[in-house]
Amino acid sequence: MKNILENDFINSIVGKFNRAPSQINKLHESDAEIIKLPGSDNYLAITTDSIAEEIQSKLYNDPYLIGWMIITINLSDLAAVCAEPMGLLLSEIIPPDTSSKFLNSLNEGINDACNYYNTFILGGDTNQGSNLILTATAVGKIRGEKVIMRKTCKPGDLLFISGKAGRGNAFALSRFVDKSVINYKPVARLKESQILKEFATCCMDTSDGLISTIDQISRLNNVGVEFIENWKNISDEDSKKLAEKLNFPLWLLLAGQHGEFELVFAIPENRADEFVKEANKQEWNPYKIGRITKQNSIKIKLYDRIIELDAAKIRNLFFEVNGNVKKYIDELLKIDSKIRHF
Amino acid sequence: MKNILENDFINSIVGKFNRAPSQINKLHESDAEIIKLPGSDNYLAITTDSIAEEIQSKLYNDPYLIGWMIITINLSDLAAVCAEPMGLLLSEIIPPDTSSKFLNSLNEGINDACNYYNTFILGGDTNQGSNLILTATAVGKIRGEKVIMRKTCKPGDLLFISGKAGRGNAFALSRFVDKSVINYKPVARLKESQILKEFATCCMDTSDGLISTIDQISRLNNVGVEFIENWKNISDEDSKKLAEKLNFPLWLLLAGQHGEFELVFAIPENRADEFVKEANKQEWNPYKIGRITKQNSIKIKLYDRIIELDAAKIRNLFFEVNGNVKKYIDELLKIDSKIRHF
Repeated sequence: MKNILENDFINSIVGKFNRAPSQINKLHESDAEIIKLPGSDNYLAITTDSIAEEIQSKLYNDPYLIGWMIITINLSDLAAVCAEPMGLLLSEIIPPDTSSKFLNSLNEGINDACNYYNTFILGGDTNQGSNLILTATAVGKIRGEKVIMRKTCKPGDLLFISGKAGRGNAFALSRFVDKSVINYKPVARLKESQILKEFATCCMDTSDGLISTIDQISRLNNVGVEFIENWKNISDEDSKKLAEKLNFPLWLLLAGQHGEFELVFAIPENRADEFVKEANKQEWNPYKIGRITKQNSIKIKLYDRIIELDAAKIRNLFFEVNGNVKKYIDELLKIDSKIRHF
Repeated sequence: MKNILENDFINSIVGKFNRAPSQINKLHESDAEIIKLPGSDNYLAITTDSIAEEIQSKLYNDPYLIGWMIITINLSDLAAVCAEPMGLLLSEIIPPDTSSKFLNSLNEGINDACNYYNTFILGGDTNQGSNLILTATAVGKIRGEKVIMRKTCKPGDLLFISGKAGRGNAFALSRFVDKSVINYKPVARLKESQILKEFATCCMDTSDGLISTIDQISRLNNVGVEFIENWKNISDEDSKKLAEKLNFPLWLLLAGQHGEFELVFAIPENRADEFVKEANKQEWNPYKIGRITKQNSIKIKLYDRIIELDAAKIRNLFFEVNGNVKKYIDELLKIDSKIRHF
């Protein structure tokens, strides 16, 4: 299997540090770090995530959205390990010429998100700098002995997603290519994660888009995934409309790197009915994506044929074009063209 | 009392957010956030701190020092609440043209610091950006029911510092004014904090310099501080030499904003002997700074007179000159000149 450049980069930076003996997960194995709490049956979950490149590239230019997102992306990582949030720390780099109107709207987004998730800003740090950068750390607890990570799904397990996919990339496409802007306000699936906790054999959020998520799960578990035939059912409606309008291949909205922060998780087939029943009882409608396979490949039906996706190539593209959005879209379209005209 | 501009700024940014019911400290009341751990007698301590301005201003240009400091400044905040570290998360903004030599040295500083403190990098996040910015979050546990914060010292308590003061500002002065460079590699006082925990009525680190620390403690507790007459004994030797060489007032090395990450703490007078004995037994030599007073003022003997320092003016200077180092030093010298020629 080809390496993922971003993983290589992370390995080169943090891979040499010693790991804490109390830490349950290894590098890349979970969305949040999981630590055994001394003198307790519970675990601590902790994660940090910044918003920098999305602001620099002008993908995010609405301060309210930036505020909402810095909370949501971190809580989504807690959701992926089925932790309940205890609060967040916020570290802000603020350019000196930032208007108070902008700051108020940023704070409103942060505040609304905290209220929505019923959690709190515990503290933080503020510095001046030339570009706006937000970093948050979310801390949560995992009750009981069971820990859900990206690992331990098995061939035969069914793969689900917590909601419809593609909106993150549709939003990016609408911002950069179309004049319309698709409504984008993802929600961390904290409530849902407490339901799937009892059933799932692995879980990861789609912060980097659906196909990256599926590829990462496949690599870690040494398995593959076969998409269901009617995978278009898991694409959300606005994404479908935009793809149609722009004549953009719908599946590329699952392949791009800007995600929608849904959870992707596997459930043993013999527990799937019970899981869906339990989810529906709590007014949640998860979607089946496909099935975990022994073979290390991601298979999806495109243009009336079963295609084996080169997921490493797709995942490395954004890194290889140095984050140049126009080039990135062109390269994605080239991959589609090759598949289409095979 | 005049307001501290940096506190006002923090209040305007995070002051409007709701506080977590499980959080023990209010805003400004402790160096790290303290949260009651559910189903346990212990507390969780968590803190986040960035290094951004120090890199931008070129105060820190040695990658090893930057790596050492990002760990030390965060662990120092844990030390100030007498917590034992469980690990750190690291969030890095790295310019694309950073050399691997620079990165290796940065990582060496991080790694050496983690080894020195016997703690670990739990995980993190990496982004590209135009300027190098490091943010870390340290998480630790506080054993038992007793919590040490910046609050609850009383008039009559004796004020101590964990080691000699002034090296942080001496280092900055040597970097910006002198050609020599003073050795600067502060150590978070984690071990010492476990000794003082049994005695102290308040504690705070000198990350912003000694006088800022004393002023912050004074404000929060509605008290004042009287320095001991021979306060020069708490200035470290390199600082004294540099001040002499540059004919720079020694007391300004306690007033500047770049600290040495010692702990300042109060001990009830009737327990002070017992505390010092216990500290010495463990080969630690804390220094007496002065005494907590009822009156809201900071008094120090300068130029053969007892001076009441305008600590708010001193603390606001760096903010008022927008971080311009040359102006900052000039303004500090003006304050000294006024006192000297009164």
